[in-house]
Parts: sequence; structure tokens; C-alpha cells
Amino acid sequence: MSTNSKSSLFKQLEKSELNTLIPLDEVLRAIPWNEQGLVPVIAQDALTKDVLMLAWANEEAIRLTVELSQGHYYSRSRKAMWRKGESSGNVQQITGVSLDCDGDAVLYQVIQSGPACHTNRKNCFYWSMSPEGARITSEPVTRVSQK
Amino acid sequence: MSTNSKSSLFKQLEKSELNTLIPLDEVLRAIPWNEQGLVPVIAQDALTKDVLMLAWANEEAIRLTVELSQGHYYSRSRKAMWRKGESSGNVQQITGVSLDCDGDAVLYQVIQSGPACHTNRKNCFYWSMSPEGARITSEPVTRVSQK
Repeated sequence: MSTNSKSSLFKQLEKSELNTLIPLDEVLRAIPWNEQGLVPVIAQDALTKDVLMLAWANEEAIRLTVELSQGHYYSRSRKAMWRKGESSGNVQQITGVSLDCDGDAVLYQVIQSGPACHTNRKNCFYWSMSPEGARITSEPVTRVSQK
Repeated sequence: MSTNSKSSLFKQLEKSELNTLIPLDEVLRAIPWNEQGLVPVIAQDALTKDVLMLAWANEEAIRLTVELSQGHYYSRSRKAMWRKGESSGNVQQITGVSLDCDGDAVLYQVIQSGPACHTNRKNCFYWSMSPEGARITSEPVTRVSQK
């Protein structure tokens, strides 16, 4: 596969048969990373199937996630690798990593320790939208270990 | 709220009480749209809770989705508004729209007609990743109406 065809590797293979395999290095080269070298990553609770958060990953974060089965991202604000839970303790054990049809979005299936959201809510999608506006629909989890 | 504070409106309100409401126009102004005026949107099956796809929306697409309860996106390839299913018939009836803690990711909960994926698979996340690589895990749905 030449590098010129990298953006269309997933397209080329979309009619391939079940269990067709692309080696990891080739997958990582074929992902159409954005200008910052990132792809969006959805984290879904493997048990409840709730969508917990959307964050971003670079190549290293995806590789670490796949190889260590721990959720890794790239923090756009800190401009650094981010192992989810490294400061909060709210780590993500990975049960699955999937890539979409275009290779430009990733889905982590996770067993989430503690709240996924930095606000201490179970998940980040707590603003419910309607024609009226957006409304807060959940409260932070009570934290017994914090002052 | 001044326009200078738009990036932090969600931050400012993250400790607000349950049912706190931001009017729709204010929400749409506060979303930190990217350089192309877009936010990533996750579509989740409201019945199975499977994550179906990730696409992008501009302000108009979000407004139409919320007001019409039909999934709208912005097609980055066609550079145009995209009502999901407008050509395929595989429309999305919306049962919920949520925004995350930072206001920079959107979750549509949908009742999906037909396959969500342009490859005619039920969902787009059909490449399963492991240290070995990425492997195709599902096949297109059989289409009776196509030649």
C-alpha cells in the first residue's frame, strides 16, 4: 500500500470479507489524523453501554490503549499524553477498541472506575437539549474520599 | 454573558443545580465550534445503545436536529448540510440530544431506519483493534431492494 493511498485504505477494504486483518502499524499509518495528529475517541461503558465521554487520541495514545488495555488519550489543553485516571484515579480498563468505516473515529469500550467526567458526574453528556435550550440532567457523584 | 466568555459558559455552570437551563440561542453561541464551525456528533441507537457512527454538525444542523427531531449533520466531503437518510432513506428519528461538559461534543440518541453505515452495515465501528491489528467484524446487511 503506497502512502498516497493511505486515506483510502479503509475505503478500499470496505467490501472485504469478515475477519480481514490489517496489521497494527499499517492501521496506524492509514488513520486520517487531523491537522493536530489526532482522532476523536468515544468512550462507552462496556456494562451499561452509556456513552461516557468524547476525547482525542494521537497515534501513541491509540497504541498504548490497544497494547496495555488502559484508556489513553491526548490532552489538547495540556498538549500531552493523558492516561485516563492518572490524577483522578478514575481509570478505564479497556474491553474493546473499534475503528469506524473511514478510520477517522475510534470507539473505546471501557470498564470505568469512578465517574468518567471531570465534574465528577458519571458521564460527560449531562446537558439535555430541546427547542427550549440545554438543561442539566445529572448531579456529581458524592465523593467520600474528598474534603 | 459576554461573547468573550463563550468558551467557558459550560465551565461556569458545571456546578449549577439540576435542571439549570440555558436558552437554545445562548447554547449555540457558547459551543466552541472548531475552525470549520463544526462539533463532533456521536449517534447512538436509542434501543440497543450501540454506538452507530460519528459525524460532524454545524450550528444549523444542531438546530434542525433539535427542532425537527430528525438527525442532521454537516457533510465535510460535500461541504453541505446533510439530513441523514436524505438519499439512502436510512433516516434517524431523534429521541434525545445531549451536550457534554465542555459543550464541544454532541450525542444524538436515534431510532435508526436501516443501516447507519454507508457500507450498509448496521453501524460504522466494524474494525475491531487488537495488538495484532484491525479486523472486520461485521458484514453488510442484505439489501433486498438493490440489484
